Amino acid sequence: MTVVGDDDTASTASPGDSLFDRLRRGDAAAVARALSAIETGGPQADVVRGRLQSLDGAARVVGFSGPPGVGKSTLVNAYIDELRSQARSVAVLAVDPSSPVTGGAVLGDRTRMGNHTSDPGVFIRSVASRGHLGGLALSIPSMLDVLDAAGFDDIVLEAVGAGQSEVEISHFADTTVILSAPGLGDDVQAIKAGILEVADVLVVNKADLPGADETRRHLEAMLELRDTVTSPPVLPVVALHGNGIGAMTQAIDQNHAAQDASCGPQRRASEALRQAAIAELTRRIAADPELDRLGAAIHRGDINLADAVGALINRAASPDERNQP
Amino acid sequence: MTVVGDDDTASTASPGDSLFDRLRRGDAAAVARALSAIETGGPQADVVRGRLQSLDGAARVVGFSGPPGVGKSTLVNAYIDELRSQARSVAVLAVDPSSPVTGGAVLGDRTRMGNHTSDPGVFIRSVASRGHLGGLALSIPSMLDVLDAAGFDDIVLEAVGAGQSEVEISHFADTTVILSAPGLGDDVQAIKAGILEVADVLVVNKADLPGADETRRHLEAMLELRDTVTSPPVLPVVALHGNGIGAMTQAIDQNHAAQDASCGPQRRASEALRQAAIAELTRRIAADPELDRLGAAIHRGDINLADAVGALINRAASPDERNQP
Repeated sequence: MTVVGDDDTASTASPGDSLFDRLRRGDAAAVARALSAIETGGPQADVVRGRLQSLDGAARVVGFSGPPGVGKSTLVNAYIDELRSQARSVAVLAVDPSSPVTGGAVLGDRTRMGNHTSDPGVFIRSVASRGHLGGLALSIPSMLDVLDAAGFDDIVLEAVGAGQSEVEISHFADTTVILSAPGLGDDVQAIKAGILEVADVLVVNKADLPGADETRRHLEAMLELRDTVTSPPVLPVVALHGNGIGAMTQAIDQNHAAQDASCGPQRRASEALRQAAIAELTRRIAADPELDRLGAAIHRGDINLADAVGALINRAASPDERNQP
Repeated sequence: MTVVGDDDTASTASPGDSLFDRLRRGDAAAVARALSAIETGGPQADVVRGRLQSLDGAARVVGFSGPPGVGKSTLVNAYIDELRSQARSVAVLAVDPSSPVTGGAVLGDRTRMGNHTSDPGVFIRSVASRGHLGGLALSIPSMLDVLDAAGFDDIVLEAVGAGQSEVEISHFADTTVILSAPGLGDDVQAIKAGILEVADVLVVNKADLPGADETRRHLEAMLELRDTVTSPPVLPVVALHGNGIGAMTQAIDQNHAAQDASCGPQRRASEALRQAAIAELTRRIAADPELDRLGAAIHRGDINLADAVGALINRAASPDERNQP
């Protein structure tokens, strides 16, 4: 593995070149530095983003979501084992929206790597949201682009902790795997209806425990409420022993096969744009003093709701004109 | 209690008058019909809404949220007992965002009423969302206005089932009570960080069970992450035996006292407007074909994200101009 020197930051002409070249060769240290640059923001992030433009995607992004206690880390490790047995390289982006602080490299990364520590075909990185998902939504696509550019065959996007962001994360993934397990308490809480809508593959982990059949039947009953013609498979897995991981990987690959990997970076850019626009509009509307005046006017019967919505939307689109006479 | 005849629908001059008069007297059947009218929509809903305009609020709205299994129904029933012992009348609006179908009166209402069935000072009504929270966000404020107009002293807004809408519901309440309890499995899952942000009062139910102290300490630790100067109280309660309900009611009343009840209807109108505007903008942005074209342009480096966000927001404000040459 190449040792990273300071040459890329010392060069004033095009400071990102050397880093990007090493990134394209899959140099782990260069990948880590590029991800840190994106996470930190600023000029170095712009340099990295600039080099990522017009990237043709090749990596497959699979998102794993599920409640705490479902055995997600164990399952992701078993999935990495399976990919490595097929000689596929894999990068893991572990996103923790509930973790308020990060300094780039998270201590947990090393412990999480388990038996993959010395495997150059495996790269693992944690990202925390610093409390606002909007920022995360903007950095995730660029981070995925970095990993894509580095040539990884597969990228795992893992929602860590008590995420409220499972649904958002699914938008960045080519395939979304939703995990459940018996013994998590109330099944209704374990898997929320909105999350099922975005599932491409459902996994019942700890399928050797009592209640696994009930968990599966519960998921299948909830799936019947979906509006879609086809239903995702519900697969029993015992991640701890590697049982069912092959079938799960096949199901993921089948879902990937229906999509064009080269469009990945473009899809991710669209999704980041969509989330950024909604976040900005939500912020503007909440901050608009006219909101309460319009609310009072609705209450008085001076304006109906539809007209008030229209007025508020117009103002949100032109915040600069608000203070004009 | 007045028996409802058909006179109000037979009158052609002002069909809502008689119903509204009975509503103002707190006639339970009239309240139920007015709520059904709002829920169903159409001309009768407009008549009811028209009569509710410029209503001066007097009722206090308290929202109860918490994960399934926390004992929410038992706690709400104990809270009703406490209010009744103080001769305060109370209406309960039980909102179930995960329930896909409702026909107005839900069978569960009668069983939920428990020992309050024959008490004219207690009114309980279930509302389901029909799958889209947007619709719920528009009908909840009008339903609260109906209950407010009917003269109830207190209104309980209860999130039922596996709600993803706890945060939204809190916007309609004057005071938001968040419940937790020991033995629900992973505490991180039991109370999500975003929900703590909106809590005015925290309750640890089943406080006689092992682990209650740990649940309380966990909540207090999470509260320290809040940006606010003051922290809400964390109150131990055993709802099943009525222990701690008096202290909880005092905490709710103290939070209510800091607010102006007469502004309730106006605040609710502003919130409905805010949610309706965001829902409409989210829909327009997702449906805009330019989203993917702008995403591709970002990917190519032809436009930066901020400019693309601006362009998308402008288009969302003027959807009618999209098809113009």
